[in-house]
Amino acid sequence: MSNNLLKGKKGIIFGALDEKSIAWKTAISCHEEGADILLTNAPIAMRMGEINKLAEKINAPIVPCDVTSDEDMLSLLTKAKEHFGGGVDFILHSVGMSLNMRKGKPYTEINYGFNQKTLDISATSLHRLLATAYKLDAINEWGSVLALTYIAAQRVFPDYSEMADAKALLESIARSFGYHYALKNKVRVNTVSQSPTRTTAGSGVKGFDGFIDYAEKMSPLGNATGEDCAKYLVTLFSDFTKYVTMQNLFHDGGFSFTGVTQSVIEQMEK
Amino acid sequence: MSNNLLKGKKGIIFGALDEKSIAWKTAISCHEEGADILLTNAPIAMRMGEINKLAEKINAPIVPCDVTSDEDMLSLLTKAKEHFGGGVDFILHSVGMSLNMRKGKPYTEINYGFNQKTLDISATSLHRLLATAYKLDAINEWGSVLALTYIAAQRVFPDYSEMADAKALLESIARSFGYHYALKNKVRVNTVSQSPTRTTAGSGVKGFDGFIDYAEKMSPLGNATGEDCAKYLVTLFSDFTKYVTMQNLFHDGGFSFTGVTQSVIEQMEK
Amino acid sequence: MSNNLLKGKKGIIFGALDEKSIAWKTAISCHEEGADILLTNAPIAMRMGEINKLAEKINAPIVPCDVTSDEDMLSLLTKAKEHFGGGVDFILHSVGMSLNMRKGKPYTEINYGFNQKTLDISATSLHRLLATAYKLDAINEWGSVLALTYIAAQRVFPDYSEMADAKALLESIARSFGYHYALKNKVRVNTVSQSPTRTTAGSGVKGFDGFIDYAEKMSPLGNATGEDCAKYLVTLFSDFTKYVTMQNLFHDGGFSFTGVTQSVIEQMEK
Amino acid sequence: MSNNLLKGKKGIIFGALDEKSIAWKTAISCHEEGADILLTNAPIAMRMGEINKLAEKINAPIVPCDVTSDEDMLSLLTKAKEHFGGGVDFILHSVGMSLNMRKGKPYTEINYGFNQKTLDISATSLHRLLATAYKLDAINEWGSVLALTYIAAQRVFPDYSEMADAKALLESIARSFGYHYALKNKVRVNTVSQSPTRTTAGSGVKGFDGFIDYAEKMSPLGNATGEDCAKYLVTLFSDFTKYVTMQNLFHDGGFSFTGVTQSVIEQMEK
Repeated sequence: MSNNLLKGKKGIIFGALDEKSIAWKTAISCHEEGADILLTNAPIAMRMGEINKLAEKINAPIVPCDVTSDEDMLSLLTKAKEHFGGGVDFILHSVGMSLNMRKGKPYTEINYGFNQKTLDISATSLHRLLATAYKLDAINEWGSVLALTYIAAQRVFPDYSEMADAKALLESIARSFGYHYALKNKVRVNTVSQSPTRTTAGSGVKGFDGFIDYAEKMSPLGNATGEDCAKYLVTLFSDFTKYVTMQNLFHDGGFSFTGVTQSVIEQMEK
Repeated sequence: MSNNLLKGKKGIIFGALDEKSIAWKTAISCHEEGADILLTNAPIAMRMGEINKLAEKINAPIVPCDVTSDEDMLSLLTKAKEHFGGGVDFILHSVGMSLNMRKGKPYTEINYGFNQKTLDISATSLHRLLATAYKLDAINEWGSVLALTYIAAQRVFPDYSEMADAKALLESIARSFGYHYALKNKVRVNTVSQSPTRTTAGSGVKGFDGFIDYAEKMSPLGNATGEDCAKYLVTLFSDFTKYVTMQNLFHDGGFSFTGVTQSVIEQMEK
Repeated sequence: MSNNLLKGKKGIIFGALDEKSIAWKTAISCHEEGADILLTNAPIAMRMGEINKLAEKINAPIVPCDVTSDEDMLSLLTKAKEHFGGGVDFILHSVGMSLNMRKGKPYTEINYGFNQKTLDISATSLHRLLATAYKLDAINEWGSVLALTYIAAQRVFPDYSEMADAKALLESIARSFGYHYALKNKVRVNTVSQSPTRTTAGSGVKGFDGFIDYAEKMSPLGNATGEDCAKYLVTLFSDFTKYVTMQNLFHDGGFSFTGVTQSVIEQMEK
Repeated sequence: MSNNLLKGKKGIIFGALDEKSIAWKTAISCHEEGADILLTNAPIAMRMGEINKLAEKINAPIVPCDVTSDEDMLSLLTKAKEHFGGGVDFILHSVGMSLNMRKGKPYTEINYGFNQKTLDISATSLHRLLATAYKLDAINEWGSVLALTYIAAQRVFPDYSEMADAKALLESIARSFGYHYALKNKVRVNTVSQSPTRTTAGSGVKGFDGFIDYAEKMSPLGNATGEDCAKYLVTLFSDFTKYVTMQNLFHDGGFSFTGVTQSVIEQMEK
């Protein structure tokens, strides 16, 4: 049952690794709502993931793209324009990786070479995407670009380590570029700050299980699921939200505006 | 052309004064998206306005309600439950009035009796609405309540006077009650902070025209229209946004996250 | 040992109930830093408290004032001007009371008559104070007014009930009036959002002990003490902070920008 | 006339280029308040600037440090410990530079190699400083670290270009590291967001004069001066603010919480 919210729209989805990915679920939701999709991911992630299954399911081409490469980005958007016969209407940036966390480096001892890579992959990549699209005029008027982020950009969650800083940078880039792209072509750019979600990427974070339980207890509606996140993203890609831009939008069951819950207080008293 | 976003849903709309009202436009959009609507407004506003035309157009009953009266609120929600044969799925609170502004009292010289009335009408009324619904169990599971607000709750716009404080109180009530209603019945409560809009109510604010031009110049996408606001509210009433709660959501073309624009700087240099 | 931060300055302190009060400690710190103080409190609180001891200690007159009375406020500021032979340099507003909490009414069932009183005592009183001072020209150029608040104005702490809404209103009033008083006379107005503190007033809040432990675990520096709060307020009254205005300033050991701590996660895993 | 706020304290000041620099003024204020200072700057900036005059005036050693070099940072802090015979009590990070702005690259066309350098100099340098100090135990208990930032990290000021993103990253690093350093040694870390100031660095920004006038008109108290900023920083280094951490503190005459002023509206109507 579709509401045709994205009927006739064309979009690019970054970061669909496997069926747990928010990007994967978003691709399916967008397809159900009438959109044509082009999928992309890092060459290495594509080998690990099962993106081909998704591509088949929603009849989408796949174009590999290393988001740290200017050439790859140019090639991706050029191919997208060829494939769709023109610009796209929406893009999901669901990309992030922390080299220091992978290497087990604590936040107070990060390696700055790794950190530079982390920022480039997780944040600067959004600038590269937008700047390339801006140059190629690859996003249609009133298009919508979303990037996934996390509340660690506002408040400290120690296990999130350098990714918190990367997300703060990402959100700033969305805001800054959102200004320029609004003026140029009425394109809007926002970030969505989602509840912790049991994706394959998320699971890599140390102490993730304990944390997801805490977030559940601290969210009056409970943690938002990946499926619900996909639905929310659909509304933000649709023409129902044309004047929403340069924002960070929480999709988290109330977590971000809750100071404490009865449930957490009870746990503290044990 | 409808997307059936609210198919089968039932809702109450406060504050449709005339066809310029955001509440009016929202009632029409909700109707187009498949919802059954019940309209309400203050008895005095109903006499001034043209709500009957709207009621006819969307085939909605009208129940008068003075939002400062516990009895009226109880009566309204009781009648709504009877009319719909059960609870409602969404409610729009679009209610606000400043007695001190009407009487021409500057912010530094407000009358506290008037101020108490302003807060009661514009903010406490949301608590009264939610508390009455909570007691009557008048909102269905995963229901959505929205109240309209303005960015003067975060930053000072001097001509907005005591309404800024009323809106800050309103947003706090939305957040506070949102917590409790999420726990009880998964009902979500949010406020939407809309661009200045040329409604009959808005036009009463001193210096409104100069201000609306400033806001236009300070919004990278331009001021959001009432029609677009109605569409955005539809998404927030729909099942596509079930985990969004306890938030203040800007619908303003980027105004709130813009510090200055080229267009304003140029005007400053004249 | 004094730093003479307030040498030659004159100030009014509201709300010194007993020696646990932040206002009490602030009066002492201001006195130590060279200020002349005038104390005030509600007539009823004065009977319960031990304000005479404080007055003797710091050689300060006491003027009773019901903050909900325009006449009392006028009388207080008139007497202050007489006493000091001119305007004051700083004022601390440390006033708050929730009638619904006293009566054991849960947030979802508050009585609106009580609520109106709560807002009047806890928030509108700041407007009344500032408006009266504005009219009487009772605050000297570059004067500083502070009101104590709590983070429940930003995020929900369910046991804080209607006081959260009162504090949101208070913070808005500080911001709104801060604009006008800056233009008139370069007076600055801020709120300070302090860690939960074991004052006689604070202890009245249900579940306060459990909560204070939680806040301790969630604050990387631990909860800020009342003594340290007094010191912080001294800096904000001094000439070292002349351009800080219209803000809400956290004094909380890092609580407000911490999403979770290792210590809380460990407790959650028990 | 000194208040001895920093009597007996030892501190490091980065970024004193010439007498217009906030860092320069801060060094003088700290010295007046009783602190012993060690000055540092980039080797290249030292050649351009007049830091020797300052060093003589306040009797401070100078240690050059390229903030992008791990070795330089280690050497600086090692020398500081030797010089002071132990750890320091406070540090001012006043460092920032945008290569893309220097090269005249607009925000939508930045070079990513330059951008990486900009982030490293302007933001990651704070992490490097804190991590090195953490490892060397170079900051005493209850020490205070401040970094200068700008409101472009929260709202878009188009001419501020990539520096906005760098400042967002800087503020996130302050918050993230502030958590860890509070736990380790009760060290606090904050950023101060200052009014636009006519420093030699600030003057490099395109359209700076027009912007500074706009900020003046938008600040109810007017733009904060560099001298007043220095005083504010002194309070944040002192023992009067021990529980303030992980925050971004505005020192801007009310700019950040002002939506519009009468003065700007009048200019808009011309």
